[in-house]
Amino acid sequence: MALHARKRIEIVMEAVRAEQVTAWLDQLGATGWTVLPVKVGRGRQGLRRAGVPGGIFDNVVILCVVSDEVAERVVRHQEELLVAKPAIVTISDCYVLRGDRFV
Amino acid sequence: MALHARKRIEIVMEAVRAEQVTAWLDQLGATGWTVLPVKVGRGRQGLRRAGVPGGIFDNVVILCVVSDEVAERVVRHQEELLVAKPAIVTISDCYVLRGDRFV
Amino acid sequence: MALHARKRIEIVMEAVRAEQVTAWLDQLGATGWTVLPVKVGRGRQGLRRAGVPGGIFDNVVILCVVSDEVAERVVRHQEELLVAKPAIVTISDCYVLRGDRFV
Repeated sequence: MALHARKRIEIVMEAVRAEQVTAWLDQLGATGWTVLPVKVGRGRQGLRRAGVPGGIFDNVVILCVVSDEVAERVVRHQEELLVAKPAIVTISDCYVLRGDRFV
Repeated sequence: MALHARKRIEIVMEAVRAEQVTAWLDQLGATGWTVLPVKVGRGRQGLRRAGVPGGIFDNVVILCVVSDEVAERVVRHQEELLVAKPAIVTISDCYVLRGDRFV
Repeated sequence: MALHARKRIEIVMEAVRAEQVTAWLDQLGATGWTVLPVKVGRGRQGLRRAGVPGGIFDNVVILCVVSDEVAERVVRHQEELLVAKPAIVTISDCYVLRGDRFV
């Protein structure tokens, strides 16, 4: 079986706005996504540590593997993503085992 | 010192079957792996949120950096991996500082 | 808007020495970094499980997106990184939406 080229999108952002972004990924055609917790991070906003009461400064990492077509839509509609103020958005090349799962 | 080309394998899957996969990676010759917790994810099975009592729906991310040879074995023996029903399996190119650690 | 080529550095290491490494990344010019918790991992030191009282064996994953210039500095000064005994250091290619954030 061959490997299938796809795009891996990784977004670091505030947990409070993550649902806004995952709903948007759904709308753009992503077949799924995964949200990971973050312990601590430093960025333009300074240091952000998880576990502070209320958790409003908690960050998360959103992983999303998509087809080239969906990745192009993400880039084309990035203004809608940027209103959720992601700290980092990276797109990189990857291969998946089952291409039919990431259309 | 030069950088050494290796493969980075990333698997998103149910926590309950993760040991089955890490044992299999060991058998194929991986020199190590790392398991990260997942907060929430959406895939073919719908939404999966961590922390539900019993945790049987918890997902994890398994990271594993391997040589080209081990990566080829993973692809060749993927049927053994797919019985553990991973949601996502990606393979991507990376470089490591110390090639002797990832044979 | 175009995508901008950057480097994604991923370091798996003991939590107790992570601040030493993030401070070093700051010094080398990284504009930010993100630290993720690890549940369990296997490497040259054997199995390391999170949550053991004291947490002195807890591992973390440090993510850091940087310019080619900063990545080259990381490689050139790697001896300073290796004293913190990272288990894995990978560098890979990625693209970011906003190049001005990762100089």
